[in-house]
Amino acid sequence: MFEDRLRETAAQVQALLTELLGTDLLEGEIARPPRLMAAMRHAVLNGGKRLRPFLVMETARLLGGDAKAALRVGAALECLHCYSLVHDDLPAMDNDDLRRGQPTVHIAFDEATAILAGDSLLTLAFDIIAAPETALPAARRADLVLALARAAGPGGMAGGQMLDLEAEKQAPDEAGIVTLQAMKTGALLRFACEAGALIATDDREHHQRLQAFGALIGRAFQLADDLLDLTADAATLGKATGKDAGRNKGTLVSLKGQAWAEAELDRLIDAAIALLVPYGDSAQVLIEAARFVANRRS
Amino acid sequence: MFEDRLRETAAQVQALLTELLGTDLLEGEIARPPRLMAAMRHAVLNGGKRLRPFLVMETARLLGGDAKAALRVGAALECLHCYSLVHDDLPAMDNDDLRRGQPTVHIAFDEATAILAGDSLLTLAFDIIAAPETALPAARRADLVLALARAAGPGGMAGGQMLDLEAEKQAPDEAGIVTLQAMKTGALLRFACEAGALIATDDREHHQRLQAFGALIGRAFQLADDLLDLTADAATLGKATGKDAGRNKGTLVSLKGQAWAEAELDRLIDAAIALLVPYGDSAQVLIEAARFVANRRS
Repeated sequence: MFEDRLRETAAQVQALLTELLGTDLLEGEIARPPRLMAAMRHAVLNGGKRLRPFLVMETARLLGGDAKAALRVGAALECLHCYSLVHDDLPAMDNDDLRRGQPTVHIAFDEATAILAGDSLLTLAFDIIAAPETALPAARRADLVLALARAAGPGGMAGGQMLDLEAEKQAPDEAGIVTLQAMKTGALLRFACEAGALIATDDREHHQRLQAFGALIGRAFQLADDLLDLTADAATLGKATGKDAGRNKGTLVSLKGQAWAEAELDRLIDAAIALLVPYGDSAQVLIEAARFVANRRS
Repeated sequence: MFEDRLRETAAQVQALLTELLGTDLLEGEIARPPRLMAAMRHAVLNGGKRLRPFLVMETARLLGGDAKAALRVGAALECLHCYSLVHDDLPAMDNDDLRRGQPTVHIAFDEATAILAGDSLLTLAFDIIAAPETALPAARRADLVLALARAAGPGGMAGGQMLDLEAEKQAPDEAGIVTLQAMKTGALLRFACEAGALIATDDREHHQRLQAFGALIGRAFQLADDLLDLTADAATLGKATGKDAGRNKGTLVSLKGQAWAEAELDRLIDAAIALLVPYGDSAQVLIEAARFVANRRS
C-alpha cells in the first residue's frame, strides 16, 4: 500500500514539475532562457523518490485537504529541496561531481548556471505556492509561504548548511549536531508534514501535532542517513560514502556509536507513530512512511 | 522635496532591515548562525540609496496605501536586490571584489558563505512579505509574493543574469539587449512600482499604470547606467568601469551611440511622467524620482 502510494505520487509530482519547468511563460514573465530552464530540469527531473511531496500529500489526505493543492505545495517543496542540493554540490560548498549517479548541475552545465538554476528553483517554489492555481484561500497560501520561508531560510535549512560548513573546521558537540541536523535536513521534513495540516485545516492542534511528527521523522531520516553512510557502499548510493568521517564532520553515530544510534532510531519512529494514534486507521500509510524513513537503504 | 523624502525613507528602511537582520529568532526558526547573519548584514546594511523601497513607498503613498506595509515590502525587495548583487559578484559570475567601495561578501567572508547569505536573503524576502506583520489582507500578501517571485525568477531577474552571462560569449542584437535588460534590472524596478499599487488597491487599472511606469523607469535606469559606464571614472562609482565593453557585452549605448541613448533616455522619462498625469500634483515626488533615475551620477 505505502509503496504503491509513494510510486503513484512520485509520478504525479514528476508530471506537474515537467509542466512547471517547461517553456510556457507565466503572466509577468518576460522570457525563459533555454539553458537556465534545462539546468533547472536537470536538477529536478531526475527520478527522485519525492519523499517530501509524498509527506505533504499524505498529511493533507489524512485531514481531508485538497489533493490538487497538496500536489502543488509538494512540487514547490521539491523545487526548493533540489535548489539546496544544487548549491550544496557547488565547488565552494561540498564540491560533489555526482548526484544520484548523474553529473551534478555545475558539472553538466557550469558553475554560474548552477548558481542561477538554484536561485531560480528557490524563487519558483514561492511562485508555485502563492499562485491562485494552488486553489486554497489566500490566507492559507500566505501561511504556507511563510512556513516554508522559515523552514528554508537562515534560521532553518540555509543556516543548517552554514553550520555544516563550520563543522568541518571545528567538530560540534552533541547539542551542536542536533541543532545542525534539525536545521539542515529536519526543517524541510517538518515543513512537509506541517504543510499538509496547513492545507487542510485552521485547527492549530493538527498543525502542531503534524509538525511534531515531521520533526521526529526528520531526526530519524538523518540518523538513518548517518548509519547508511557508515555501512553502505558507493554503488548502492550513487555517491561517495564515508565522506563525512573523512571530512571530520561529527555525526551522532560517530559520537555515540552504532548501537545507540539504532536504538535511538527505533525510539524516534515509535514516538512519531504514537503522535498518529488519534487518527486511527487513516494514518496507516503515514505509519508505513515513518518505518520506511528509518529502514531505507538508499 | 524628493531628496528629503529619499533620505527619510532610506533611514526608515535601514532601521527596519537592521531589526530584521538582527539576532532575534522568529517563530519556526531554530537558530541564526552568527557568521551567516553577519554576512547578510554586510550585504544589506551598506548605505545604499534604497531606490527600490523608495519607489514601493511612494507609489503606495500616491494611492493611499498603508505606509508600514509598504516599508516592509520595500525592505523585502531590498533584501532580494542585495541577494542578487552578492551572487552576481561571485567568482563564477562577474567576479567582483568591490561593491560601493567595500569588499564584496565572498571577499569579506568566503565564497560558500556568500552563496548561503544570498540564498538566505532571497528566502527572507518572501518571509517578510508573507508575515502577518505586513499588515495587509492575506490575499494582497499572496499577490505580492507572486508578483515578486515572477519578477525575480527564471522569467525575470535570475533569467536576465543568465542572458547577461551568455552575452559575454555571443553579443546579443538590439532585441536581445532589450529583453536582457528588461529582465536583469527592469523586472525589480517594475515590481517596485507595481507593489505600491498592489498594497493600496484592488483596482487593476492602477496596477497596470504603475507597472508600466516602473517598466519605463527600469529602461531609463539601465540606459543611464550604460551611459555612466561609458563616461564616469572608477572613483565616482566605487567599482570598475568600462568593464562591459572589455567583456564584449553589448549595450544599447555601444550599439546605437551616445547621442541616440541620451535622446532615448529623455523620451522614456517623458513617457513615464505622462503616465502619472491622472494623479495630478500628488505625483510630484514620483516625477522627480523619474528625473533622478535619468540623471544620477552614481
